[in-house]
Amino acid sequence: MNYPEVKVLENVKEVLKGIEDRKFKRMYVIACGGSSALMYPSQFLVDTKAENFACEYLNSNEFIYRNSPAVNADAVVILCSQEGMTPETVAAARYAKGKGATVITIAMVDDSVLQKEGEFFVKYGYYETADPIDTSYGVMYLLTAGILQAQEGIQIFDSMVKNLEALKKVIDRAKEQYADKAAEFGRACREDKVLYSLGSGSAYSQAYVFCNCYMMEMQWINAIPIHAGEFFHGPFEIIEKNSPVIMLMGLDQTRFLEERALTFLEKYTDRIFKIDMKDVDFMDVEEDYKGYLGALVINNICRMFSKAIAKERDHSLDIRRYMHLVEY
Amino acid sequence: MNYPEVKVLENVKEVLKGIEDRKFKRMYVIACGGSSALMYPSQFLVDTKAENFACEYLNSNEFIYRNSPAVNADAVVILCSQEGMTPETVAAARYAKGKGATVITIAMVDDSVLQKEGEFFVKYGYYETADPIDTSYGVMYLLTAGILQAQEGIQIFDSMVKNLEALKKVIDRAKEQYADKAAEFGRACREDKVLYSLGSGSAYSQAYVFCNCYMMEMQWINAIPIHAGEFFHGPFEIIEKNSPVIMLMGLDQTRFLEERALTFLEKYTDRIFKIDMKDVDFMDVEEDYKGYLGALVINNICRMFSKAIAKERDHSLDIRRYMHLVEY
Repeated sequence: MNYPEVKVLENVKEVLKGIEDRKFKRMYVIACGGSSALMYPSQFLVDTKAENFACEYLNSNEFIYRNSPAVNADAVVILCSQEGMTPETVAAARYAKGKGATVITIAMVDDSVLQKEGEFFVKYGYYETADPIDTSYGVMYLLTAGILQAQEGIQIFDSMVKNLEALKKVIDRAKEQYADKAAEFGRACREDKVLYSLGSGSAYSQAYVFCNCYMMEMQWINAIPIHAGEFFHGPFEIIEKNSPVIMLMGLDQTRFLEERALTFLEKYTDRIFKIDMKDVDFMDVEEDYKGYLGALVINNICRMFSKAIAKERDHSLDIRRYMHLVEY
Repeated sequence: MNYPEVKVLENVKEVLKGIEDRKFKRMYVIACGGSSALMYPSQFLVDTKAENFACEYLNSNEFIYRNSPAVNADAVVILCSQEGMTPETVAAARYAKGKGATVITIAMVDDSVLQKEGEFFVKYGYYETADPIDTSYGVMYLLTAGILQAQEGIQIFDSMVKNLEALKKVIDRAKEQYADKAAEFGRACREDKVLYSLGSGSAYSQAYVFCNCYMMEMQWINAIPIHAGEFFHGPFEIIEKNSPVIMLMGLDQTRFLEERALTFLEKYTDRIFKIDMKDVDFMDVEEDYKGYLGALVINNICRMFSKAIAKERDHSLDIRRYMHLVEY
């Protein structure tokens, strides 16, 4: 695919300028599947920074059908769909606009049906080729930081820009560093019927997308995303010596939950595949941002893991049985 | 276990009286595992009814470590632990109290460490023997309705009481009605290595508890909870003709999502085990409450399903490898 140039930072600033006089009680981040998972770090960012407004993270149709009275002129709703065509997300944008909410859509293409339903739009770049700041994740971090700054008076936008700009080198080096581990994961798990992935805080989003999209959708391998804190209240009973676990370790406030899960797993399974932000050199990224932006670094490594297992299994990541092929 | 008498309605009214002059910007429902899942319908209830305050649903440790600035004197935090001893939930209550929040704890026993950390307490009855209104679910519905009424001016508490009181007969009959289906599920799935459960809205909580607690914890069977709306954005690619799916169908606002998933599943797998509130006689329960209270009816049927498969597999629901047995 050949995607046109993006001007993410310029576009985000225009959007933030357009909404600078509006006061919001609530923010919603709304999408489906992988586009939804990439919004979870924004919910986490708002939750850890905002005193006066709450952020809700919902699947597009769940959002529409819940029909909350809080979706009104006091709400800002951000929606994402890669090609701007996901019917539920398009409908969610239309619904939110109808309720008087401020609607911001983001997609990788211009003039999509999704864009037409919103008041504001930001186009992002293709994740394989764009700089981190220009990807869907980058747009979400920027928009969320800008809204937090305007609504809560926290000076965060400029430093978010600076830290996102410092991320390309970090990701490039992390990918080199994890190349062998990805290949090892692919070889070791090619015959497995069930995988598990754990994370907490913003990294939980990557357990979710790894299992639901990269494994179940793209490899037809059963994969169970487990919140690292919830693990000890049920799911851990399934773990045996040969259970393959992709353990995601971020650097955000919730890292303790992941460390606790890792300590347990190290005793009870021999097959831990760890993606740990502590082993990554964040170079010029500031301390407070390593946790928030770590989700995007983890995402890049998870994609490498999925490519490695796809290669080993000779099962292209692009094969589908149902998606866009049958009616549903 | 022999649990003492409970006076749920009286106790809830005392709590509501105690907080009637307080104004909340945020409600948090905080617990772990099964105790967490039973709080999800309260988040759903607030989301569908409240314009001015938001409800967040988080694992206890995630809640503590996120350390949101919104956890302050303007927040009410409800925490649940059956025996009142779950360390993370006890710590979460202490944390919330330290932040000046109003802390309400609920448990099945008196004088627990959890109770001591909170300002208010409600004791609930054992789910196998207590009336629905006296169970943990009952307490949560009542507290949430009371808080909604006080904060939003919606007259909902008395009708919630009336509808909860009408639920015992409904559940008793639904259990009779589903006895054969539970046995059939047990026989049909006793050899399966992976199960799937789908639901949306308040029923999603039951897919979560069915998979994480009843199957993974109590039967050591892999089970993947899937949101019925998210299903089409990844997980559905895993479905084959012999995939066993426990399809949960409620009567709340989001039923369309479950119906859509069912329509798909009916084409692509021969093994759907449907628990459908449309087939249940809700008798004196009013229309608007069937959706909200349906989660508790589904919970009762899911418990029957778990007992049936436990019997078929000769694997007691009480056996554990790790929980309360090893250090973690």
